[in-house]
Amino acid sequence: MERAEIIGLSPIIIEPIVRAALAEDLGRAGDITSDAIIPAEARARGILAARQPGIVAGIEVAATAFRLLDPQTKVEVLRHDGDDVTAGAAIATVAGKARALLSAERVALNFLCRLSGIATATRALVDAVQGTRARVCDTRKTTPSLRALEKYAVRVGGGVNHRFGLDDAVLIKDNHIALAGGIGASVSKARERLGHMVKIEIEVDRLEQVREAIDARADVIMLDNMPIPDMRRAAGMASAAGVVVEASGRITAESAAAIAATGVDMISAGWITHSAPILDIGLDFESD
Amino acid sequence: MERAEIIGLSPIIIEPIVRAALAEDLGRAGDITSDAIIPAEARARGILAARQPGIVAGIEVAATAFRLLDPQTKVEVLRHDGDDVTAGAAIATVAGKARALLSAERVALNFLCRLSGIATATRALVDAVQGTRARVCDTRKTTPSLRALEKYAVRVGGGVNHRFGLDDAVLIKDNHIALAGGIGASVSKARERLGHMVKIEIEVDRLEQVREAIDARADVIMLDNMPIPDMRRAAGMASAAGVVVEASGRITAESAAAIAATGVDMISAGWITHSAPILDIGLDFESD
Amino acid sequence: MERAEIIGLSPIIIEPIVRAALAEDLGRAGDITSDAIIPAEARARGILAARQPGIVAGIEVAATAFRLLDPQTKVEVLRHDGDDVTAGAAIATVAGKARALLSAERVALNFLCRLSGIATATRALVDAVQGTRARVCDTRKTTPSLRALEKYAVRVGGGVNHRFGLDDAVLIKDNHIALAGGIGASVSKARERLGHMVKIEIEVDRLEQVREAIDARADVIMLDNMPIPDMRRAAGMASAAGVVVEASGRITAESAAAIAATGVDMISAGWITHSAPILDIGLDFESD
Amino acid sequence: MERAEIIGLSPIIIEPIVRAALAEDLGRAGDITSDAIIPAEARARGILAARQPGIVAGIEVAATAFRLLDPQTKVEVLRHDGDDVTAGAAIATVAGKARALLSAERVALNFLCRLSGIATATRALVDAVQGTRARVCDTRKTTPSLRALEKYAVRVGGGVNHRFGLDDAVLIKDNHIALAGGIGASVSKARERLGHMVKIEIEVDRLEQVREAIDARADVIMLDNMPIPDMRRAAGMASAAGVVVEASGRITAESAAAIAATGVDMISAGWITHSAPILDIGLDFESD
Amino acid sequence: MERAEIIGLSPIIIEPIVRAALAEDLGRAGDITSDAIIPAEARARGILAARQPGIVAGIEVAATAFRLLDPQTKVEVLRHDGDDVTAGAAIATVAGKARALLSAERVALNFLCRLSGIATATRALVDAVQGTRARVCDTRKTTPSLRALEKYAVRVGGGVNHRFGLDDAVLIKDNHIALAGGIGASVSKARERLGHMVKIEIEVDRLEQVREAIDARADVIMLDNMPIPDMRRAAGMASAAGVVVEASGRITAESAAAIAATGVDMISAGWITHSAPILDIGLDFESD
Amino acid sequence: MERAEIIGLSPIIIEPIVRAALAEDLGRAGDITSDAIIPAEARARGILAARQPGIVAGIEVAATAFRLLDPQTKVEVLRHDGDDVTAGAAIATVAGKARALLSAERVALNFLCRLSGIATATRALVDAVQGTRARVCDTRKTTPSLRALEKYAVRVGGGVNHRFGLDDAVLIKDNHIALAGGIGASVSKARERLGHMVKIEIEVDRLEQVREAIDARADVIMLDNMPIPDMRRAAGMASAAGVVVEASGRITAESAAAIAATGVDMISAGWITHSAPILDIGLDFESD
Repeated sequence: MERAEIIGLSPIIIEPIVRAALAEDLGRAGDITSDAIIPAEARARGILAARQPGIVAGIEVAATAFRLLDPQTKVEVLRHDGDDVTAGAAIATVAGKARALLSAERVALNFLCRLSGIATATRALVDAVQGTRARVCDTRKTTPSLRALEKYAVRVGGGVNHRFGLDDAVLIKDNHIALAGGIGASVSKARERLGHMVKIEIEVDRLEQVREAIDARADVIMLDNMPIPDMRRAAGMASAAGVVVEASGRITAESAAAIAATGVDMISAGWITHSAPILDIGLDFESD
Repeated sequence: MERAEIIGLSPIIIEPIVRAALAEDLGRAGDITSDAIIPAEARARGILAARQPGIVAGIEVAATAFRLLDPQTKVEVLRHDGDDVTAGAAIATVAGKARALLSAERVALNFLCRLSGIATATRALVDAVQGTRARVCDTRKTTPSLRALEKYAVRVGGGVNHRFGLDDAVLIKDNHIALAGGIGASVSKARERLGHMVKIEIEVDRLEQVREAIDARADVIMLDNMPIPDMRRAAGMASAAGVVVEASGRITAESAAAIAATGVDMISAGWITHSAPILDIGLDFESD
Repeated sequence: MERAEIIGLSPIIIEPIVRAALAEDLGRAGDITSDAIIPAEARARGILAARQPGIVAGIEVAATAFRLLDPQTKVEVLRHDGDDVTAGAAIATVAGKARALLSAERVALNFLCRLSGIATATRALVDAVQGTRARVCDTRKTTPSLRALEKYAVRVGGGVNHRFGLDDAVLIKDNHIALAGGIGASVSKARERLGHMVKIEIEVDRLEQVREAIDARADVIMLDNMPIPDMRRAAGMASAAGVVVEASGRITAESAAAIAATGVDMISAGWITHSAPILDIGLDFESD
Repeated sequence: MERAEIIGLSPIIIEPIVRAALAEDLGRAGDITSDAIIPAEARARGILAARQPGIVAGIEVAATAFRLLDPQTKVEVLRHDGDDVTAGAAIATVAGKARALLSAERVALNFLCRLSGIATATRALVDAVQGTRARVCDTRKTTPSLRALEKYAVRVGGGVNHRFGLDDAVLIKDNHIALAGGIGASVSKARERLGHMVKIEIEVDRLEQVREAIDARADVIMLDNMPIPDMRRAAGMASAAGVVVEASGRITAESAAAIAATGVDMISAGWITHSAPILDIGLDFESD
Repeated sequence: MERAEIIGLSPIIIEPIVRAALAEDLGRAGDITSDAIIPAEARARGILAARQPGIVAGIEVAATAFRLLDPQTKVEVLRHDGDDVTAGAAIATVAGKARALLSAERVALNFLCRLSGIATATRALVDAVQGTRARVCDTRKTTPSLRALEKYAVRVGGGVNHRFGLDDAVLIKDNHIALAGGIGASVSKARERLGHMVKIEIEVDRLEQVREAIDARADVIMLDNMPIPDMRRAAGMASAAGVVVEASGRITAESAAAIAATGVDMISAGWITHSAPILDIGLDFESD
Repeated sequence: MERAEIIGLSPIIIEPIVRAALAEDLGRAGDITSDAIIPAEARARGILAARQPGIVAGIEVAATAFRLLDPQTKVEVLRHDGDDVTAGAAIATVAGKARALLSAERVALNFLCRLSGIATATRALVDAVQGTRARVCDTRKTTPSLRALEKYAVRVGGGVNHRFGLDDAVLIKDNHIALAGGIGASVSKARERLGHMVKIEIEVDRLEQVREAIDARADVIMLDNMPIPDMRRAAGMASAAGVVVEASGRITAESAAAIAATGVDMISAGWITHSAPILDIGLDFESD
């Protein structure tokens, strides 16, 4: 996916989150180290530099942190969200009052490293399934209060988003099925009581349930931890019926290719948001 | 550290964070899946069960999620924060209205898995340095808006906390030193302008700076990415001077033992909060 | 739709909205009238009574207002959300401290009357299309900050909800089409860049666009202000293609039947949320 | 009333309300339609045009919505709050990034249409009583959380405001009177316990109570649903005593003239805020 | 004024303020002293005791602090708001978990001491004018964000409240008069453009202005720093005209009696909220 | 301390507090006096002038109030925070729209007078101990929700800050000692369970406890209400052991010199924040 095609994030969403993070870090007295020992008028210039290869995500979020502490801070973006960087690559430069740069540094990096880590993990999965019809998507296993940002990072990495919350799509899992009286009853109740703009997905883990789900006219069928051969048959059945199929269950960059080869439409992975290590990015101050 | 000795978290801090996470997940329409297909009066019982071995952290946070959606929900805690669990171990049971349990499940698990992941990572480091004088601590490389919770998880794992923000202690890094005119000037300015309840730490990366820092009467010296032999000499010098020494710089469970053996007082690690994978914990509903 | 089948609202969503409304009304000094002239220990009992026939919606919201001012207030619900009431019907009784009842009265009624008004308007449309396949739905023309509540009231009235915001489904309108390069390009770009859980609707106002939209594989086609005969043909084309069709554009209880008879699946109406008059409900205090 | 004489609204009050409305509509992913299919650099120009005649109110609120999504958006106001517009009249133009215009459109219109609807309803009442001494005012029957805006719209329509909440003036109703021990006791307790900057109004529904209220030295007497002849006598009695008289109770544009002719000072109407239909205003994009 | 007659404060107003104060004090880690060294199960009992004589105000606010940290905490109120206490008097007892008591102590006392200080200062003024017709009132010179509480404390001390903000009454000062074109123009513009529930006060500092203000039909005239003889004449003129008169300008407990003797209706004093010293109250833990 | 050396306050901390104060004062209708009677286009110029001698603090906070109501307002600062002003001194000028200046006036002054009052009180204590080694510090006896601002004012006055909350340093008081099992146990438990960046202070009131505290290796010893001779011996003992000593307990500008002469390092005083009278500062509008 090209950079210009990433679905972005409104400042209305970004700003309050960054403001809260700065407030959390500044506490009740602010950056006592910088304020105590660095002259108010001192200026500095720094480079946000990758310490390891990966995909950049969150530059605008990081820039917001610097600008909120001092609107005069100049942020020059050298590599954009979605760009592939090598270790040592300069991602952006920041210039302005030294105190403001130092005070915003950690918050800016905490966002940038985390989001880039998610984008990098996503890209690994995306690359692993290249050449197949499968697309990579995320889950609701995101960090509390950062879902909008983390799902953005998944998009930056080349993935697409699964639902954003409990309210924007239906996902019927095994426990729902048991309590609602079976696959058919579950889907038809949801269809009847909800509007026409809501997609209905149902999770199955056995092949015979796939047929039931197709007959129930689910929009999407999630194959949970299914053996590869079953998955292939399920993908075939669903494809014939015009139903989207999503594979799920601890899918890694290693296992993804084989799963994608079964013909599923979607591969969802929780770890790209809940367990991706950060992409190490640092802020190097320049000597004059 | 025994369970009773963990410094806890006030509900005043926990509740707004969990409430925000539930609001994020429920969005504008709530859990449309459960509400559409599960009878309002249906009741259920589930077990929070570990899917892999590790240290539990955040049970009270998870319980808060369940109780906020339905105050009648019964949460029985079987394993407490700080307990070591094996794969399959039951951590807690939840019982109540089926809809409320299902609607709270993901938020409860997102907190519990993440915090337990941090505690587990911390414990690995703590175990690695056992028998030495070194204690393990965290950094400010935490998830924006979750610092209080993540630092709690570090305590649960047997670590202690480094500063909570920019305002509760001084940490003078290389960029500060350059802008403030050297180690001696930095420490003395901070000492002069700040109160007597603030500890002053200074980061050094060369042995000759250790002497300067001791002479400047810093409370704590951080050795950043220093070679082991230098670290040993630095630890000796500082110990003789009654100054606390902290080792820092990509310290892993593998490298920690050797570093601890140098005699440093503290080992700080950013990855235990920013890159620890979650501890996989699931919610299994019981059949009656 | 039976009462038990209405998709409800979580207290997590209701409570902050009611709390804000009470704070708005109490201001900086509270209910100075009641506090100044009514004894603190005085108790009262009142009946929420309909002053005109209609559909009740928002009883739980109103009850929350009374309970937030005094948790001891007893609210007995006599008619539930979705119930059809006649003028004079008792909807609920409230009993407790007189001051608390009087202080909460206006906020409770402001919610209850407005939501019941929306439910009543919705029911009129629903009744008008009875016997056809058409279902009634709402729009995003809701009161700022009350969307969750107002869309709930639509459900109470027997309608279903269109999308809740800009982020949970795609609706491509004429301006989008013009800027994006046509119907086909619009739908395919949306399909390609968004996840599989998002429905895509496209608005058309001429019959030839219906074919384009079907070919573009839109999930839903909105017929905007189309003449009845065209609407009938469009409904036929879409039905044959398995595409959902929504009629839109100033549809009233009078015009709805004829539109529904064209075979459309959905009828959406903005006025049920933006211009429905309230259902007049009052609080009558009982003499002892 | 001339435009310049309308008591305005501070940005301190407007901005948080508009920001909350945008956040409600953008949800967790923003405007996925526009972001997915419209090029980031595309620009557009639109006209806010009245679809029916009425009084404009809320232009600055609508403009705030556009500017919050993109501070570069140019808003040119052609007709100001309080202006009388005909169907088709251009009220303002907006020009800027196409995505930002489309994303803000619904929120801007939701405010503008609602507030203009209230102003239009108010103006109808104001016109109906022209030539009498009566002024038109509102009630506390406003939309929860929008009271400041809706009462502003009443001012725009030529009305004045009754109290803003429970705390800025006293209004003693029948239930208060019963619980407090009569009209005389009610007014004197309020007068004694409250400060000198608070006006005291008492609601009566029988002529004999008017005398009691005058004797009790109420500042304002509200005549609730009183027959016209009684109202005339009450107005005369009050006028002679220098007490302000307010008529209340389902007063419509039709019944207002006769009521005003009785000589009352004020006519208050709840429906101008709780049941006024919106003024239909749309955003027409221009072709280049 | 008897205790039962004080206009109280709703929990809807109190609770968010106390919650914010606790959050401010607990910060990101809570009460690390108590949590680190006091056993979780330890219980304690303490007495809120006056260290100096004065008027108690804010007991419920203090109790809220204790209860928010632990709902099980028992608070027994021995002396109520408005009570006169001597040094050493027990005001209330608190009993519960030792950690919760210690963690809430400072916040509870910060509120209680401040509010009691204001009540005590107010009572001194009230006592000074006893026997005259003058009542004591406050100003808008209150602590930012605590106005509701501080004005409550003034009521507890026996005073009444001046306006609560810029929006609930009109106060025309010298600068307004200059910009608006004189006393007559100021009052008549305000009367014309504002509703009938708003009192209009005008500040004057010369005797000739009093006549102008009476002729302009102001509701209240504020005499700002006027010499006693002029004040007496002004009071007489206003009284004859049925206009309320308020004396203002650095009025102390010493100067109040002479001012009250002039026959003014109100005496307003800013220092009772902005410069009253706290009433010293401590929390004594009991040994068992 | 020179002006440039005062540890400042970030706009991230200041702005939300000022915004809340303006919202509190503007209420639901704004400044109805100015809006009703002063022409929208009227401009004015005013001087913030000291009415009594003292130390200025909070100029930036006051300026924020003016700028938030109208970003075009020009604020020219003539005397900076920390400057010593005489009665009549011009502190700053403000120029802009008359309505905005008048609407912001009270909030700006409420902050400026309070903070300057605290700085002035602090400076009195600082001056009293000049020539000794003692420094002046504050306590947690601050106004709820204004701690960050009030502790800033203490710094402006030449003091330093004690801890900012319960979470950034340990202070073990008599009740803690009793519940934790003595001085030695208290300090060692705190040391063991908390990180290395936290200072530990212990309060003692008898000389024999000083030795215990030194032996327990507390970082700071607070002498609470100790007789001067004991204080001198305590200071000597602590100094010899390299432990910081803080004197506490109703220390006034009168008693401070004698206490400082005992050789203590720190003198803490609650009254400088909880009972300092404001510094009277007014806003004088200029005639043209």
